[in-house]
Amino acid sequence: MIKVGIIGSTGYAGQELVRLLLPRKDVEIVWYGSHSYVDQNYSDIYGNMFKLVDAKCLDDNLNELADEADVIFTATPQGYLAGVLTEEILNKAKVIDLSADFRLKDVKTYEQWYKIEHKAPQFIKEAVYGLCEINRAATTPDVRLVANPGCYTTTSILSLYPLVKNGMLDLSSIIVDAKSGTSGAGRGAKVPNLYCEVNESIKPYGVATHRHTPEIEEQLGYAVYSIVEGDAEYSNSAVSDIFEEKGQPGGYPITINFTPHLVPMNRGILATCYASLMPGYKAADVAEAFKTEYENEYFIRLLGEGKFPETRWVEGSNFVDIGFTVDERTGRVIVCGALDNVVKGAAGQAVQNMNLLFGVEETEGLTMPPLFP
Amino acid sequence: MIKVGIIGSTGYAGQELVRLLLPRKDVEIVWYGSHSYVDQNYSDIYGNMFKLVDAKCLDDNLNELADEADVIFTATPQGYLAGVLTEEILNKAKVIDLSADFRLKDVKTYEQWYKIEHKAPQFIKEAVYGLCEINRAATTPDVRLVANPGCYTTTSILSLYPLVKNGMLDLSSIIVDAKSGTSGAGRGAKVPNLYCEVNESIKPYGVATHRHTPEIEEQLGYAVYSIVEGDAEYSNSAVSDIFEEKGQPGGYPITINFTPHLVPMNRGILATCYASLMPGYKAADVAEAFKTEYENEYFIRLLGEGKFPETRWVEGSNFVDIGFTVDERTGRVIVCGALDNVVKGAAGQAVQNMNLLFGVEETEGLTMPPLFP
Amino acid sequence: MIKVGIIGSTGYAGQELVRLLLPRKDVEIVWYGSHSYVDQNYSDIYGNMFKLVDAKCLDDNLNELADEADVIFTATPQGYLAGVLTEEILNKAKVIDLSADFRLKDVKTYEQWYKIEHKAPQFIKEAVYGLCEINRAATTPDVRLVANPGCYTTTSILSLYPLVKNGMLDLSSIIVDAKSGTSGAGRGAKVPNLYCEVNESIKPYGVATHRHTPEIEEQLGYAVYSIVEGDAEYSNSAVSDIFEEKGQPGGYPITINFTPHLVPMNRGILATCYASLMPGYKAADVAEAFKTEYENEYFIRLLGEGKFPETRWVEGSNFVDIGFTVDERTGRVIVCGALDNVVKGAAGQAVQNMNLLFGVEETEGLTMPPLFP
Amino acid sequence: MIKVGIIGSTGYAGQELVRLLLPRKDVEIVWYGSHSYVDQNYSDIYGNMFKLVDAKCLDDNLNELADEADVIFTATPQGYLAGVLTEEILNKAKVIDLSADFRLKDVKTYEQWYKIEHKAPQFIKEAVYGLCEINRAATTPDVRLVANPGCYTTTSILSLYPLVKNGMLDLSSIIVDAKSGTSGAGRGAKVPNLYCEVNESIKPYGVATHRHTPEIEEQLGYAVYSIVEGDAEYSNSAVSDIFEEKGQPGGYPITINFTPHLVPMNRGILATCYASLMPGYKAADVAEAFKTEYENEYFIRLLGEGKFPETRWVEGSNFVDIGFTVDERTGRVIVCGALDNVVKGAAGQAVQNMNLLFGVEETEGLTMPPLFP
Repeated sequence: MIKVGIIGSTGYAGQELVRLLLPRKDVEIVWYGSHSYVDQNYSDIYGNMFKLVDAKCLDDNLNELADEADVIFTATPQGYLAGVLTEEILNKAKVIDLSADFRLKDVKTYEQWYKIEHKAPQFIKEAVYGLCEINRAATTPDVRLVANPGCYTTTSILSLYPLVKNGMLDLSSIIVDAKSGTSGAGRGAKVPNLYCEVNESIKPYGVATHRHTPEIEEQLGYAVYSIVEGDAEYSNSAVSDIFEEKGQPGGYPITINFTPHLVPMNRGILATCYASLMPGYKAADVAEAFKTEYENEYFIRLLGEGKFPETRWVEGSNFVDIGFTVDERTGRVIVCGALDNVVKGAAGQAVQNMNLLFGVEETEGLTMPPLFP
Repeated sequence: MIKVGIIGSTGYAGQELVRLLLPRKDVEIVWYGSHSYVDQNYSDIYGNMFKLVDAKCLDDNLNELADEADVIFTATPQGYLAGVLTEEILNKAKVIDLSADFRLKDVKTYEQWYKIEHKAPQFIKEAVYGLCEINRAATTPDVRLVANPGCYTTTSILSLYPLVKNGMLDLSSIIVDAKSGTSGAGRGAKVPNLYCEVNESIKPYGVATHRHTPEIEEQLGYAVYSIVEGDAEYSNSAVSDIFEEKGQPGGYPITINFTPHLVPMNRGILATCYASLMPGYKAADVAEAFKTEYENEYFIRLLGEGKFPETRWVEGSNFVDIGFTVDERTGRVIVCGALDNVVKGAAGQAVQNMNLLFGVEETEGLTMPPLFP
Repeated sequence: MIKVGIIGSTGYAGQELVRLLLPRKDVEIVWYGSHSYVDQNYSDIYGNMFKLVDAKCLDDNLNELADEADVIFTATPQGYLAGVLTEEILNKAKVIDLSADFRLKDVKTYEQWYKIEHKAPQFIKEAVYGLCEINRAATTPDVRLVANPGCYTTTSILSLYPLVKNGMLDLSSIIVDAKSGTSGAGRGAKVPNLYCEVNESIKPYGVATHRHTPEIEEQLGYAVYSIVEGDAEYSNSAVSDIFEEKGQPGGYPITINFTPHLVPMNRGILATCYASLMPGYKAADVAEAFKTEYENEYFIRLLGEGKFPETRWVEGSNFVDIGFTVDERTGRVIVCGALDNVVKGAAGQAVQNMNLLFGVEETEGLTMPPLFP
Repeated sequence: MIKVGIIGSTGYAGQELVRLLLPRKDVEIVWYGSHSYVDQNYSDIYGNMFKLVDAKCLDDNLNELADEADVIFTATPQGYLAGVLTEEILNKAKVIDLSADFRLKDVKTYEQWYKIEHKAPQFIKEAVYGLCEINRAATTPDVRLVANPGCYTTTSILSLYPLVKNGMLDLSSIIVDAKSGTSGAGRGAKVPNLYCEVNESIKPYGVATHRHTPEIEEQLGYAVYSIVEGDAEYSNSAVSDIFEEKGQPGGYPITINFTPHLVPMNRGILATCYASLMPGYKAADVAEAFKTEYENEYFIRLLGEGKFPETRWVEGSNFVDIGFTVDERTGRVIVCGALDNVVKGAAGQAVQNMNLLFGVEETEGLTMPPLFP
């Protein structure tokens, strides 16, 4: 029985962890942590859990929780985990962090984009970037700390990784135009997230400044290593170690444009990625690269050339749907990736990481078909 | 292994059957029937099933299907099943009908409200009305034909049944004001169901003429029998047999007002039910009646007095949430019931019936927590 | 030139006043009052007003404002206006109050339902209930204080008034099941009004306790007077004076059930009203009553028997659409009324009142066709 | 009095023409043309027009209509107008075409992208491309035929025009990622446009193949002429004549990537445009270019650097909101434009053109503030 504690269980991602873990016979949730709702019934906060969860919200005492849990999910604001994490905690329980605190290997980049000091840089190297499809080899039962990737970043990296890794893209030409449902904005009570403000509108935000930008750049920067070294077998974690030894923890420098947009829907992310193909590459090469990298990946569904994903087809599931086209007129490849930001973009991916860390089948508890309509 | 065939698998309810049955290890879907999409890949019609369903749509040949399946779900337009059903088919496979063809015991009422001739009245008596919570005793492995209740009717009947059965309501005072998401309107290409026509609007329809009205009336009419006979132990099916012998197949005559409304959301039904309490009854009596009837029902969640259901809390699940209040000023009880029209209002309830017919645990495959947000 | 001040101009109703008054050549907005956004550019709060409004938000100093304005609209929380209103202010400027402070003639009822003490009961008698269609005679240029009706109440009263006034209804049988878009919940930052909480859900709230209940009851109670006195010519204001002299300020006692629901859309209210017809009345009588009362009303559109309103058809306009049916089976009439809660349910009606108070054509600035889709 | 006929008045754009023209005292709509609803009451098709339009739908006999109208709006499918337009019609009435038939000057490009033969190429040269803000000089009372621009194209061209015209962009680097509300898909009854299919989803479509692509390319290609000739005073129409004489009717060849997406909302288009700045240009230069071109344009609202448009702020209005940022890291400028696709993207712009053609104030009937929420 895997004993699970959730810090931030009353946020949308935290609640999704509950939804995904509750049906499992090999998992017990022992701690429903919350900052705002301590001592309240969990099912009063989330009515969907009525009669399913009979527990009150506890505080966010990570130390105490580490005594009771085998694994702790932290679905918390940026900076929180870095501020409280200790060697002692990691010795008692594994931590899967859904925040950005340990995603970036280059602490300077973190501090520059997040505009906060990193309080626990000593754990950065150890943290495994938990994008299982490109980093599975590093996600092993001895890992103590997983940095669960962001929602936009998961979509963007998976859409571009095979092409970057195989040297097919002009690396200076990458643009990711992404669209997200509103659950990505969290459950905080803010005017811009009110129903009447979001409904019947679409808007860009964080243009040229969104914090998921360097995360995408860093991971794609690691993928480049395979081109340089002529070897496609490196996991991104392995590459990040190599770069760190070179004193270049952020990997090969890539700069992209990343523009997120807020869409009036609950769940779903679509990333429309543009890049110029290097000379000589055709649509068939692109298709081949995707197939080679992903054909055995359960959670990645390749739609192929000329077919494009729609977020409705992945809702409630851990799938990532990817399609592409090559525009001969402009020499660009356009790759679109879609996923459910609360599942594969957050809680589902965290469970996938948990499965790997505990030697359980990677897809356990994550094979439900998408819900439509 | 239960071999399942679905006629109408490309409608919303049919697709939901696929979603619910696909993960089950004891079920195999052997026939994806469709009227409009024969020979097309099922996953081209429903992209969420890509990589999960590798089958083409077959036609709606019920006879041939009955040779291959243990149970056939018919998610078809009114009149279809009555037009093709035969003794031979029922001898080969059980049929769970999601249409209205065998829901009403009084064929005259059927023909009057549906304005079509009933082509197979000989099977009406045999058909079990599959509202498990009030008719479980009759839903046994020897049953050949189940009439799966309508979405509005499930919500309305379950909200009122304990009060009617216990003689607490002025039977002439019942009003059900119901609200449904748009999936209830089906997947047909009609202007009134276009996004821009439904979005940002609410409308009543079928006022005083909606076909679910007599279904609610008939089932509540059976429930009255317990008052008359002073015995609360009859299943509705048992009562309907008694009434039929009396030459009064529609049960005790009750007339209600039922007004459905179309709401701009995908899933969910909310029924707001009004009735005058018989003298002497208080809120505590109402609460007691609900508790007595439903406290052991897995799929019914009693919110209690002063708490009301919201459709978001049941989405994707087989739950029915019920709350109520008694207005001392007017002497009325107001009961609200909510469910997911595609699950408990259609496919989920059909699976619940299948479980009972095949001696499987009633909740099998139906215990997923609701999806939110 | 009518000089207008708006207290609460940064709420949804306040902003709608701006939208409606800005294009008028006979009106000048001299004061954009706000509680939360003082000194900020109005167009930074409402981006739709960019380049149209070049003003900063001012505070809510009613006294100072009264020196500058001919009329003050107060789109403020309950209790605010009653707490600050003085004879001096009313001598300087007319006040049209969009809150509930002066809607109820019976101060005890007010204090009971709103659970606050009324701080200025001395102005209650003077205040004209500004539902122009039933109270136009009382809304004259000498009026100093108008109590602008609530959104639910406008819909409900207008849907039932002709039938109550003409003695056609069993007054103990009235039920109003109402549905509202989310703008009615205001612009306050609260979790239940977040996009993801409202979207894809419908819920009842304030069941048997909503504060619009006594307002509907009181106005319908005045309408009854015409039955009693056999004279249909009284305006509701005239009747309320008569009742007040009798020491029965709330009018003829009527109790109804009123149940509001929150619908995932921005604008619109639909009221589905049920009542038993008094013996002998038929659909034709109902149609006649509506015609007699409303056929010359510009803002009321009678759809007739068997046709029902949809909120999409009134969006952005000051129209109220009304349709009905008589259910012979149950003896009930079902009347549905629809309007835009921000226009006819708030700002549009307030402008209509302003027009009457200043001797301008009643429809001035309010004849824009509804916006669809 | 301008007598107006509308062919296609029962589509969304046609209905919006009715909404915009109905309140005007100088305009009379004499012909509500329709393909599908001939002889039906217009207000039965569009309930918002009940009591406002008392007319039946007429057929689409352009010849007969030309006798009765001063101007004809054709809101019709591609190919329709080109198939029926004659010299005789144009001699009798002006035609403002909301379809794409006369937007492209290069007939080969038209036939290639639209995959239909152009049946009336003789009128192409004469047709004025009615994007008033960049082509006002050519839109004069002697013009007989206006090609009203597409919705995506209006947004895209206006967002990029000042930068292209002033030589600030690497012309090979332009990418437009656009998002549209669902009204852009029209009122045809198609499964992909049903509420449940569109709601809660976002999808790309027409990737690298959408027909608005060459329209954007052609107009930007004309704008380039000013760079080449060192003279910014040419209207696009003047330039297109010059290019035509050179035998190069499509203008300076530019190829872009244009990717539209379908968003679950009724109205609104947002275009997120990316391009690399030519060396030496800074944000201040970009701001200056926008200001120079647009500061006197009533319908263009420049938000400035670092501020971005949201479609909610333009709903129901003829405004185009534009904001931008320059990303120093990548050397790209990102410009976002937003408008209401049914107003400035279709009917509003058509009315703006009508105003110019009839010597009326350009903004007449188009100054209503945007509707929010």
